[in-house]
Amino acid sequence: MSNFYGEIDPPQRLLMGPGPINVHPRVLRAMGADMLGQFDPEMTEYMNQTMDLYRQVFMTQNRWTFLIDGSARAGIEAALTSLIEPGAKVLLIRSGRFGMLLGEIAERLGADIATIDLEWGQVATLAQIEAALAEHRPAVFAAIHGDTSTTTAQPLEGVGALCRKYDALSYVDATATLGGMPVRTDEWEIDVISAGLQKCMGGPPGSAPITISDRAAEFIFSRRKVESGIRRDDISDGTRPFIRSNYFDLAMVMDYWSEKRLNHHTEATSMLYAARECARLALEEGLENRFARHVAAGKAMAEGLRGLGLTLYGQDAYRMSNVTGVYIPEGVNGERVRARMRDEYQIEIGTAFGPLVGKIWRLGAMGYNAELHKVRLTLAALKAVLESEA
Amino acid sequence: MSNFYGEIDPPQRLLMGPGPINVHPRVLRAMGADMLGQFDPEMTEYMNQTMDLYRQVFMTQNRWTFLIDGSARAGIEAALTSLIEPGAKVLLIRSGRFGMLLGEIAERLGADIATIDLEWGQVATLAQIEAALAEHRPAVFAAIHGDTSTTTAQPLEGVGALCRKYDALSYVDATATLGGMPVRTDEWEIDVISAGLQKCMGGPPGSAPITISDRAAEFIFSRRKVESGIRRDDISDGTRPFIRSNYFDLAMVMDYWSEKRLNHHTEATSMLYAARECARLALEEGLENRFARHVAAGKAMAEGLRGLGLTLYGQDAYRMSNVTGVYIPEGVNGERVRARMRDEYQIEIGTAFGPLVGKIWRLGAMGYNAELHKVRLTLAALKAVLESEA
Repeated sequence: MSNFYGEIDPPQRLLMGPGPINVHPRVLRAMGADMLGQFDPEMTEYMNQTMDLYRQVFMTQNRWTFLIDGSARAGIEAALTSLIEPGAKVLLIRSGRFGMLLGEIAERLGADIATIDLEWGQVATLAQIEAALAEHRPAVFAAIHGDTSTTTAQPLEGVGALCRKYDALSYVDATATLGGMPVRTDEWEIDVISAGLQKCMGGPPGSAPITISDRAAEFIFSRRKVESGIRRDDISDGTRPFIRSNYFDLAMVMDYWSEKRLNHHTEATSMLYAARECARLALEEGLENRFARHVAAGKAMAEGLRGLGLTLYGQDAYRMSNVTGVYIPEGVNGERVRARMRDEYQIEIGTAFGPLVGKIWRLGAMGYNAELHKVRLTLAALKAVLESEA
Repeated sequence: MSNFYGEIDPPQRLLMGPGPINVHPRVLRAMGADMLGQFDPEMTEYMNQTMDLYRQVFMTQNRWTFLIDGSARAGIEAALTSLIEPGAKVLLIRSGRFGMLLGEIAERLGADIATIDLEWGQVATLAQIEAALAEHRPAVFAAIHGDTSTTTAQPLEGVGALCRKYDALSYVDATATLGGMPVRTDEWEIDVISAGLQKCMGGPPGSAPITISDRAAEFIFSRRKVESGIRRDDISDGTRPFIRSNYFDLAMVMDYWSEKRLNHHTEATSMLYAARECARLALEEGLENRFARHVAAGKAMAEGLRGLGLTLYGQDAYRMSNVTGVYIPEGVNGERVRARMRDEYQIEIGTAFGPLVGKIWRLGAMGYNAELHKVRLTLAALKAVLESEA
């Protein structure tokens, strides 16, 4: 029997977890615009504008700054698949779930993996990173900027320069920080950084902005493999082992986003509109203002949680400004509190992964939700629930 | 200098090419709904509804019917990456650009490729398919249902049964036909079929519905590899070589869409809303009514083009009902006609790929645009442009 269900009609919920979060209304409206042909001049102009806007968001001059069609994880995999040749040595920092994800992806790519393994929530020092680079001499170094699983941000100042000194290409996942904490691509000299929209950018999940340095692009183009169905005289295959994915072949994706306009996938038009509007909002606000807004909201959240007598997880010095971990008090059923927050106040707060399951909640204040009044509403609701659970 | 550009404001263009096409207004509106937490009960209920809706669209009882986050090509790659083990024998039909794409992806996966190679626009007979299955004994058979590059539909009746007879898993790409021509998953006994929204489903590109038979799912689960950061007692690794992609590991994606709710990517919420609404529209109309509407529009397009004195490309018997190829008349500049159609009438018609570049135009009438008045407008505009070019 057919059942068509009703119109989409989600509850109006305040999403104060580690993401996705509520989307700015201007971004939702931008997705209401109709399609364009893939190579219509207006479409390619929107693609070019989006590249320019994300150069500003990533604080970079990188020509190759565009979108991967898929979730933030698609951006990570596109970067690693294009950078890691089978058997290549890769150095990773693992101190949380998403650092472990880098290892999972690298393993599937057949990499020879070396790791800086730290307790969850710890950060690597420059000295640790240099020692590991010197010891392992990796072809690729990869790390997470802000790992929401531990609410911890890895400092990246100086990391890119070290990688260049040891002749490694560097990759950073900035999914949880782009638009909320500084992601200084050029200043940090990181070769490839990818992100998502659904955290501090205030957009929906499903599009992954990425930026690629010229030296990384040169390497990736050396792995290019052009589809035989669309071969052209002005584009040739590379000299190195080809990339083991078609969808994530960044050389083909760059040819698609370049003036060559070599057909690859069909760009996710509505998500492009969303990504473009997210960037416009961030740049109109001003990146530094936006970072300050996230700091203020994160600080209010941290102080408010401490004011409730709760103990924060992690180190103040390396805490992400946009998501705060807090220990579930002894004797309190963490999942019941989350359910009551949702059912009685229509507020979502986050659970945890791995060794932190059942130990901490994660409270986000990012993008459209990095606002003091939303932090106050969340704290007031949590206070009421905890008091009635006591 | 910062430049934020203006609001998104595409021209109101009638997209009568091979896709993307204009999106039904109800689908655009569905994307305006705000986010939900990934595991909020309302979100998982929407996911379950979407699975049920696409079972109906794919005409299948397959439990495993869900969405891949990415373009239609992401669906193809997810299927092939999960089905093809390194070194496995794969049999493909290649008679157009997208058949060649199957080969490109299989090559990157390290498959041992056998092909039924036909001239572009030809279809394989059951006898040809059986002979190739008997000769090559592939682990996986893959074909395109409707290849828009040639406007040709491969008949699939009986193909799945042949594959089972020779113990091959079967895959079909139905990107260009789902919702416009019958895709009879269960009747055809095809193991895995993937599609997109941007053709006959009347939605935006960026989400790939997929359906998977139990026997294919069993094989895929035997290649499962659970991320160490989220390992759980109730889910274990498989016994066969793991899938060479994390993002496209259908075993993990199925665990995410199942009641196990094992975290994988963050589902592209807005695209899920869009996909759900596309399916609701298709089912409310009735699939058979919808197929008839596409046949009527395609017939009107074909007859109208012939009425203009033009010669159709391809064979009437195997023509897709939703996209029609037509030879560019001698002495006519095909690209100038397309530009004039766009600039003077705001109508897009399609160019071509590979051996057909500069030889044919491709005119679509699909999804929201499979309407007689839109076909008539397109023909009237083309007539006017051709007359003034003469």
